[in-house]
Amino acid sequence: MSERPKAVVLLSGGLDSTTTLAIAKAQEFDVHALTFAYGQRHQAELDAARRVAARLGTAQHIVAQIDLRLFGGSALTSDIELPKGRKPEDMAHGIPCYPLPARNTIFLSFALAWAEVLEADNIFIGVNAIDYSGYPDCRPEFIEAYQHMADLATRAGVEGRQRLMIHTPLIRLTKADIIRKGLELGVDYALTSSCYDPSPEGTACGRCDSCLIRLKGFSEVGLQDPISYRLEG
Amino acid sequence: MSERPKAVVLLSGGLDSTTTLAIAKAQEFDVHALTFAYGQRHQAELDAARRVAARLGTAQHIVAQIDLRLFGGSALTSDIELPKGRKPEDMAHGIPCYPLPARNTIFLSFALAWAEVLEADNIFIGVNAIDYSGYPDCRPEFIEAYQHMADLATRAGVEGRQRLMIHTPLIRLTKADIIRKGLELGVDYALTSSCYDPSPEGTACGRCDSCLIRLKGFSEVGLQDPISYRLEG
Repeated sequence: MSERPKAVVLLSGGLDSTTTLAIAKAQEFDVHALTFAYGQRHQAELDAARRVAARLGTAQHIVAQIDLRLFGGSALTSDIELPKGRKPEDMAHGIPCYPLPARNTIFLSFALAWAEVLEADNIFIGVNAIDYSGYPDCRPEFIEAYQHMADLATRAGVEGRQRLMIHTPLIRLTKADIIRKGLELGVDYALTSSCYDPSPEGTACGRCDSCLIRLKGFSEVGLQDPISYRLEG
Repeated sequence: MSERPKAVVLLSGGLDSTTTLAIAKAQEFDVHALTFAYGQRHQAELDAARRVAARLGTAQHIVAQIDLRLFGGSALTSDIELPKGRKPEDMAHGIPCYPLPARNTIFLSFALAWAEVLEADNIFIGVNAIDYSGYPDCRPEFIEAYQHMADLATRAGVEGRQRLMIHTPLIRLTKADIIRKGLELGVDYALTSSCYDPSPEGTACGRCDSCLIRLKGFSEVGLQDPISYRLEG
């Protein structure tokens, strides 16, 4: 049995969650990685999560199936056209492309359930309030409210045996800072997948919000992104 | 299109959630019922939810598949022995049989996602802090904390267009009061299923915590429970 404190780490296989996993490992947590298969249009994200978990090393990696398509209303799980070629300054306003309804609320709820079973006090989530593409559930005030709720939700919280800590190591970092931090920790970003609209082989589009924010981050660091992007006519 | 306000109603098919659905209908909400198939050991609960939704009438009834067995740790989704024959006063302490980790947190998170897609301001949940069998996420302070978190989680909440109201019409009622309220509204409790350990045909055991609380409620009202219980040797 490991003597290290246990942590549930939310892992999408993207740049942010991969860096978050590397940080949890560097902080000597016993990492239990949790990935969601939520009716995505593509498998690239799940493949990346499995590659990352295998390379960085976890005590356990679970892929939870949750089909949010049944509610409708999301570009990432339906056929709604994704915006392409937007400027970063336009992404943070109006939230015109909300990838999944109540996304982080649902993901954290599953993490909380697993943490309760594991008797883990720690959850890591790679939310970011700087380059956050306008999602309300990536802000510090949301995370604080979630943590307060979670302490009232569980047996261990109510009995005072457990005080949940939601770690958000990226929340105040720019994308460039995140990349620098990951590189310091030896992360190979070639393993990761950030694109909302990859090709069937997993090649990134280079034009969705997620690709544009990622490319801008690498550009600010002065490095080339190691993943490949497809050329569009 | 309905002009009535929309509400997402969590419906397990048990006595409490069925009464809650009847209350939401009586309050003239346009009801969107949400049931979870979470790897239960039995289908009786899902069958009851479908019967109740059909009889009481809903705008929509969705059964969401979420497999919480992957986390382990719950008597209702695994082979752990359920306590039988406990006295009601013993059930509220120590939470020895926690049916699902972070149960209401997860259920409310899916309800929130659907409410966001529907642009519904209302969620109904049949939690009860009196005969609550010791679950921390059935208490008013949990619901208040959840509602606060939810207002920070969604686009509509942050933009001030939506202010979520989580309705808990049963929270301060005894089981007997709940039954009286449901009977006033014409609920046929023969449709419902509360047992944690029904037979394959759906017959209640009569000895698990849930059956005992239910039977005590009917006894206090001075009525016989219309569902059948199996006789044990």
